[in-house]
Amino acid sequence: MPRRLARMLPCLEWARQYNRDWAVKDGLAAVIVTLMLIPQSLAYAMLAGLPPVMGLYASILPLIAYTLFGTSRTLAVGPAAVIALLTASVLGPLFAAGSAEYAAAALLLALLSGGVLLAMALLRLGFLANFLSHPVISGFMSASAILITLGQLKHILGIQASGENALQLIPSLLQHLPDTHVPTLAIGASTLLFLHLTRTRLAGWLKARGMNAARASLLARTGPVVALLLAIGVVWAFDLAATGVKVVGAVPQGFPALSLPALDPSLALDLLPAAVLISLIGFVESVSVAQTFAAKRRQRIEPNQELVGLGSANLAAAFSGGMPVTGGLSRTVVSFEAGAQTPAAGALTALGIALTVMFFTPLFYHLPTAVLAATIIVAILTLLDIKAIGRTWRYSRQDGAAMVATMAGVLLVHVEFGVLLGVALSLLLFLWRTSQPHIAVVGQLPGSEHFRNVERFAVVESPKVLSIRVDESLYFPNARYLEDRIAELAGQHPQAEHLVLMCPGVNLIDASALESLEAISARLHASGIQLHLSEVKGPVMDQLKRSHFLEHFGGQVFISQFEALATLDPSTTERATRLKRNGQALAAQPSGNEEVS
Amino acid sequence: MPRRLARMLPCLEWARQYNRDWAVKDGLAAVIVTLMLIPQSLAYAMLAGLPPVMGLYASILPLIAYTLFGTSRTLAVGPAAVIALLTASVLGPLFAAGSAEYAAAALLLALLSGGVLLAMALLRLGFLANFLSHPVISGFMSASAILITLGQLKHILGIQASGENALQLIPSLLQHLPDTHVPTLAIGASTLLFLHLTRTRLAGWLKARGMNAARASLLARTGPVVALLLAIGVVWAFDLAATGVKVVGAVPQGFPALSLPALDPSLALDLLPAAVLISLIGFVESVSVAQTFAAKRRQRIEPNQELVGLGSANLAAAFSGGMPVTGGLSRTVVSFEAGAQTPAAGALTALGIALTVMFFTPLFYHLPTAVLAATIIVAILTLLDIKAIGRTWRYSRQDGAAMVATMAGVLLVHVEFGVLLGVALSLLLFLWRTSQPHIAVVGQLPGSEHFRNVERFAVVESPKVLSIRVDESLYFPNARYLEDRIAELAGQHPQAEHLVLMCPGVNLIDASALESLEAISARLHASGIQLHLSEVKGPVMDQLKRSHFLEHFGGQVFISQFEALATLDPSTTERATRLKRNGQALAAQPSGNEEVS
Repeated sequence: MPRRLARMLPCLEWARQYNRDWAVKDGLAAVIVTLMLIPQSLAYAMLAGLPPVMGLYASILPLIAYTLFGTSRTLAVGPAAVIALLTASVLGPLFAAGSAEYAAAALLLALLSGGVLLAMALLRLGFLANFLSHPVISGFMSASAILITLGQLKHILGIQASGENALQLIPSLLQHLPDTHVPTLAIGASTLLFLHLTRTRLAGWLKARGMNAARASLLARTGPVVALLLAIGVVWAFDLAATGVKVVGAVPQGFPALSLPALDPSLALDLLPAAVLISLIGFVESVSVAQTFAAKRRQRIEPNQELVGLGSANLAAAFSGGMPVTGGLSRTVVSFEAGAQTPAAGALTALGIALTVMFFTPLFYHLPTAVLAATIIVAILTLLDIKAIGRTWRYSRQDGAAMVATMAGVLLVHVEFGVLLGVALSLLLFLWRTSQPHIAVVGQLPGSEHFRNVERFAVVESPKVLSIRVDESLYFPNARYLEDRIAELAGQHPQAEHLVLMCPGVNLIDASALESLEAISARLHASGIQLHLSEVKGPVMDQLKRSHFLEHFGGQVFISQFEALATLDPSTTERATRLKRNGQALAAQPSGNEEVS
Repeated sequence: MPRRLARMLPCLEWARQYNRDWAVKDGLAAVIVTLMLIPQSLAYAMLAGLPPVMGLYASILPLIAYTLFGTSRTLAVGPAAVIALLTASVLGPLFAAGSAEYAAAALLLALLSGGVLLAMALLRLGFLANFLSHPVISGFMSASAILITLGQLKHILGIQASGENALQLIPSLLQHLPDTHVPTLAIGASTLLFLHLTRTRLAGWLKARGMNAARASLLARTGPVVALLLAIGVVWAFDLAATGVKVVGAVPQGFPALSLPALDPSLALDLLPAAVLISLIGFVESVSVAQTFAAKRRQRIEPNQELVGLGSANLAAAFSGGMPVTGGLSRTVVSFEAGAQTPAAGALTALGIALTVMFFTPLFYHLPTAVLAATIIVAILTLLDIKAIGRTWRYSRQDGAAMVATMAGVLLVHVEFGVLLGVALSLLLFLWRTSQPHIAVVGQLPGSEHFRNVERFAVVESPKVLSIRVDESLYFPNARYLEDRIAELAGQHPQAEHLVLMCPGVNLIDASALESLEAISARLHASGIQLHLSEVKGPVMDQLKRSHFLEHFGGQVFISQFEALATLDPSTTERATRLKRNGQALAAQPSGNEEVS
């Protein structure tokens, strides 16, 4: 088997060893995940503002695509809450809810998202996900959980309410609160209670009654599907739909025709930023889940191939009437605990959903939307992590600020705005942090050939030669700071004739820093000081040789700072080297664990 | 004198020592700069799409404001070509050229720009200028020079033409080329030739005739004002305005009333991004010029106080009917060469322009716009540096790409778009570059306590303990890469029981990296490996102590990598330490100048 093909189709690797034992385990896991996925996919489609059946469609072909192209053995792909929220927040302001244009735009969004992910794979742009720093993701998740819960309350209460942020949703909910529909609220509240109890208590209760722990935990996971069936039964038996309890209604039976989503170029351009955001957030979440579970079995995932897996899953969703998808945490946990061995479990889950679409959709006619809303709320509130704010703030003010800004933006303005605000703030703070690298004046440690910070050690300084060490690569965030600092230090040493820049910590000098070095050299010249370099690393030296800097700057490049001083001021250097190593000169000895240079 | 006041009003320092000698030198420099500034300020106002007199207004109070608040002894502040271009590119699409709204918006732009600069000073946000990496600035300057030249050609040819990028300007110029007005072209072309010759040849010619070099060079700088007077004379004598040569026309005489610009909040919000860009570009240019000249006299400038100086200059421009201003290179050169000693030269220049506004504006009635266009073209083409593209590309592909993208964006789309494209690309490439730090597996150098890269040295590796060194701070751009790499390395060492992360090069661990470390630790645990840290710097250790990582990760933090190995795998370590230092084990000796770790 050619190596390239094996990389492109990771399924070939496990498919060759596939056996009956794996098939049984994968099959069992698939049954349980299917039972979980039915309510989830209906609910997340509703959350995205789409007909519930689109959630089911998004749980068939996309799962098969990931089975073929993904590298995680356990990741469960499909509709997910935050992706559904992003979809709704993008499409809500553009189209009427429930309209054909809205649904068509969701397909286009899935198509774009798939395209973006595959383009990132092709161009090796997975590093773009780094823009979403952890505080931003965490803040986004918590704020989304609050926003989604606020948005679903109307279904629980059986009222109208709208708004794309908390400032709009809360007043709207309060305004319509008097219209609360009691039978709906009864169903919604009891479902919430039931789901909460099955999630938190059922497994323990079953274990106390002698069931083994793994089976009890899996059984507890089927709570939502049980709630769904119970609610359908109750609504049907008492014909509650006639009293005004909102139900899902007619769900088309059978498969959607495979079709190309309508490609409106100007709409595509409008949706592209949102598609990029959906892709990045989906990718970050998915890879982090996949990596966690791969580690449990000492398996490996390949991030770049994951882009292919998720990208093809989204394309499959776009072509089969689905919605944007990604790898989700909750179903992956269940699949793993149920013993799934290979991605074939995903394909078998797809089979389960396909059977549901073929035979069971009429069942959902009497399913109350309040039950779906309760399913969403109980699932999403696990993402809410308020304590993370304090924890992050204590650890680092900058990271805490980025997290709070993201949350505030998502809650008070708009989901995308919040994420962009957080990313922008992360970048700004990052730039601020790296724009002032540690720059030390160094002197010779008596009795040695070493050079150390004059502020920390009693060292010998040459009156003629100013030695400066930079502890950072030189690039555009700090190029101008370097100019400022060196001008300042040169001004403080009016007798200096030479300035040696010691570069052991410089891994890169970019074009901005090169320009700054040229400016520094010229300005030092103008004030009668010659610039030199020392301890320049090989790759940096190679790059400098591709410019004219070394020919023009007039100074030398020394192998070591000692050699530089021995050449430029031999008398001081000889005197310092002869001094006793442990004599009176070594006054300031740094203590144990501190930075010792 | 309180120190704080001295920082806020740098003029207090030199004012105390002011003497007659300085006054004479400053006065002489002011006369020459005034003669240069008259045509330049008229021309740059025209370039900005404003009545020429606004350029004169912008050359009075703003200069006095900078004299009071600026820290450079020689910087000449006033209207500048690239700032004028940015002004035109922002206001052009919004308002009719020559309308009162256009002029009012220019004042608002100056006000916002001043506000942005002062806010940056107050919040110490000068580091934001770092976003404009050198390749972006350089690409912007070159492309602006081309764009400005294309835009001014219509004045030289006496035709109509319009467009905000080269793709619009060139066809428009070609289309109207048949309408060329011959007398205007004659004036424009001869002015171009005259200015070019005075700029390149006059000083040499005068020196050859025995004039001293400094005086010859200064005299050559008055070329534009001579051209202006000659042209006025010719147009007036032959009444060329009647033949269709466009002239400046009536210029109001006397001072404008001090007034607050009309503050339209929605327009202000629209103009804010442009104001930020104008502020940043103006600041970067100004500081770089100021620093260069300060170095020549071993003086210092204070970048943060420069923000105050430029900010107050722009506010002064807004309140006195001017236009956005900054410190420019060409007039600073002349002021310095003419012997200016203190910023008082700027105040005296302001006096010169004030006298011009009071008495000489009727003179400009017959000034042909073709002469102003020629002044702009000759000045701006010095910014064009086409060779820089090749030079930067050879030095670094990434920097070259950022430069080309900026130029293409400015020339083919829009000035602001080009700069934003360049900034975005710089950031992307920067993130890409820092997202994959050098991570090496290290082993013990036989006969020593040192640890080196296993790929470069013949070292002893412990079978139980995997030692990994990271040569970069751990923060969000590389946090996920660290997870990937460690998962990969752990997978390659199935017998490892411990993994020690050696952190001598880690200056920072941000919240994203902390989260990654927790994930790494948990995943390693799941696959039976314990994580440890070694050689953690003091400040990083302090920060880690503010999180719960150290309590939960289960590993130890060792002072040195040697101590870690001596604790976790004493037998291998003892054996390695006993090995002879210069024996057969040391096979791979790195050569001279290479990276030696």
